[in-house]
Amino acid sequence: MPLWKIYHPVSAFSAEDKKGIAEALTGIYGRVIPKFYVGVVFQEVSADNFYIGGEEHPRFVRIWVDHIARTFQSDDARKNFFRYVNKKLAPFIADRGFDWELHVDDTPFDLWTIQGYFPPREGTEDEKRWMAENKASPRTHD
Amino acid sequence: MPLWKIYHPVSAFSAEDKKGIAEALTGIYGRVIPKFYVGVVFQEVSADNFYIGGEEHPRFVRIWVDHIARTFQSDDARKNFFRYVNKKLAPFIADRGFDWELHVDDTPFDLWTIQGYFPPREGTEDEKRWMAENKASPRTHD
Amino acid sequence: MPLWKIYHPVSAFSAEDKKGIAEALTGIYGRVIPKFYVGVVFQEVSADNFYIGGEEHPRFVRIWVDHIARTFQSDDARKNFFRYVNKKLAPFIADRGFDWELHVDDTPFDLWTIQGYFPPREGTEDEKRWMAENKASPRTHD
Repeated sequence: MPLWKIYHPVSAFSAEDKKGIAEALTGIYGRVIPKFYVGVVFQEVSADNFYIGGEEHPRFVRIWVDHIARTFQSDDARKNFFRYVNKKLAPFIADRGFDWELHVDDTPFDLWTIQGYFPPREGTEDEKRWMAENKASPRTHD
Repeated sequence: MPLWKIYHPVSAFSAEDKKGIAEALTGIYGRVIPKFYVGVVFQEVSADNFYIGGEEHPRFVRIWVDHIARTFQSDDARKNFFRYVNKKLAPFIADRGFDWELHVDDTPFDLWTIQGYFPPREGTEDEKRWMAENKASPRTHD
Repeated sequence: MPLWKIYHPVSAFSAEDKKGIAEALTGIYGRVIPKFYVGVVFQEVSADNFYIGGEEHPRFVRIWVDHIARTFQSDDARKNFFRYVNKKLAPFIADRGFDWELHVDDTPFDLWTIQGYFPPREGTEDEKRWMAENKASPRTHD
């Protein structure tokens, strides 16, 4: 987590674009959570499988994200997050004439594991180690 | 939002069926939210990728929806919604002998953008404009 | 519900593996809810559509689950659930050298239908019948 799911038209993005988007999205969280927490999954949806307002929409990118509940500590943090996402995605989406929509869902921190471990709380020694090593390892404390 | 995701068996629906389902689902919300808010994504799942109760189930349609939190103002509104969805989907699903399951998740209004804009609150001038024009445009007030 | 979605690398699992995983996951709930409540959907994601920490990760399994809100009655129940899932999935995932991540989302019990029926509350006669028959049937009481 976060897990970004990106529904996009067939051939909308090259492999390079997708790598670029994944890096940009990972960069958004880069300093606050371990990098390997950020998952991005691209999924092509053909025109006849994708409807907006009851109509086919061949240039629509639909992004939906599962976040950890209470990720945003304030209203400003929340607005800045979306502004930043906008800015980072613009070269791939808005600037190319795609329409797009994005929503984020909150999911419970307590119902999440990586390699079978419950991720450490913010600011703990375990989290520092996971961040420094960029991988999950056995927990050493609660 | 709402975003409807419809997992279905291979070749369960023709392109015409899918258009019909998308129109029916959009119609459910037609008078209360801008039409272009309603997204519907169809996804074929082959028999060996789809298990119900640990068994393959070649005639199962699994629908899941992301809604805005607190969409339903009352218990009656909630029940009517599901009754109406049932009725609208019956010609495509139940009447053709498919089994089916549907669940709706609540997701936060505040974590949602279209074309980079936070959608307007219900009843505002901005929402009236978005509805009349059937597209997102810059917000003119909070 | 629960609905398990399993994103995995191309050819990571044979048809037999997938059946085995679906049975194992269904078994976890076997004594508490009707078997047919448990849905499992597998989805191949090719390497260039799947990024972890901004990088391709060809051996990553990403599992995400929609549960009914308040499924876990205590902290111990919650931890035991994840331990049990770990154990059941290990032969298919960890023991084969895949990395993996899992998260569960809570979704509202009241916004869920099977064959158009709202599922019965725990311990009711209707639930007993659904469990015994392993299928949905008309509700006989609230």
